[in-house]
Amino acid sequence: MKALQDKIRNEGIVLSETVLKVDSFLNHQVDPQLMLAIGQCFAGAYEGEGVTKVLTLESSGIAPAVMTALTLQVPLVFARKQKSLTLRDDLYVEEVYSFTKQVKSEVAISRKFLTPGERVLIIDDFLAYGEAAFGMARIVEAAGASVAGIGIVIEKSFQSGADKLKEAGYRVDSLARIAALTPDGVQFVE
Amino acid sequence: MKALQDKIRNEGIVLSETVLKVDSFLNHQVDPQLMLAIGQCFAGAYEGEGVTKVLTLESSGIAPAVMTALTLQVPLVFARKQKSLTLRDDLYVEEVYSFTKQVKSEVAISRKFLTPGERVLIIDDFLAYGEAAFGMARIVEAAGASVAGIGIVIEKSFQSGADKLKEAGYRVDSLARIAALTPDGVQFVE
Repeated sequence: MKALQDKIRNEGIVLSETVLKVDSFLNHQVDPQLMLAIGQCFAGAYEGEGVTKVLTLESSGIAPAVMTALTLQVPLVFARKQKSLTLRDDLYVEEVYSFTKQVKSEVAISRKFLTPGERVLIIDDFLAYGEAAFGMARIVEAAGASVAGIGIVIEKSFQSGADKLKEAGYRVDSLARIAALTPDGVQFVE
Repeated sequence: MKALQDKIRNEGIVLSETVLKVDSFLNHQVDPQLMLAIGQCFAGAYEGEGVTKVLTLESSGIAPAVMTALTLQVPLVFARKQKSLTLRDDLYVEEVYSFTKQVKSEVAISRKFLTPGERVLIIDDFLAYGEAAFGMARIVEAAGASVAGIGIVIEKSFQSGADKLKEAGYRVDSLARIAALTPDGVQFVE
């Protein structure tokens, strides 16, 4: 998606070989017009796939995911992150490890918002090692629903998440795929 | 806003005299079409007010706020909640107490995303005692910007937040105003 690549090139800040800061349009300040274009792009890619629900993880996934859900005309569910969780029978809970933050957290969704037979499109802002996406996919499958695909705004293709998700049989659609983060800037996958 | 009142009446769950659960369309599962209608309603109310930025608090404020920002064609900034924060010079930080959760947290915004002279529309999902709204307003003013107004999806009018904000001179626009939560359901302010 060219508008997204241009935005990353112009406003993304390379903090290290593995960390890209995009807080001027995605993670903290948000460009709503770009989010709508992103949502329309995901929705177009999954037209005719029978998606019944969009699923994301708070907080940075919500803006692109709500625009995807708006365009597909289906509900959005955002999973809650919690450091630790008292046992609750009415929740699906999965543990997710963040390599970036080096912290384990629990991701939870109310059982009443995922029902057997649903076709779920998972949306997230970043894909690195795939921990969050796998965690959401496990929840979808625990509910007896199926994963239509995984839509990613920015894929760090030099990390293993996209390959692992595809090997596990998931469809992955990434709107920007980063080959390398260098002192000279962001290199995209050709 | 009638569509919102109908949704609250049909899907809201009264948990106690003070707690209304709206997780089927606002807090956990999200109705994107309703969020767009909410955003258009706020945007209409602030047309011509010179709003340059929409500000909200993660996570439940993001969906209505991004639709407001989309319609007003201005950026959104969502403040980050953190339990405790190491001192960081590049942030505006305010302490906010949640009466509902009985927990104090810090709310933070990067200094680079609020600049002097900006006109900021604050959006939040709920208004109870006004703690979150006052915290965001203090950050806006610390940045040398001004508060155009405070747009609330659901105001619990039986709690003191709306009155306190108006007494402090802020414009408050609430799309649904709840007079009482009773075993028989939700009573709206006439």
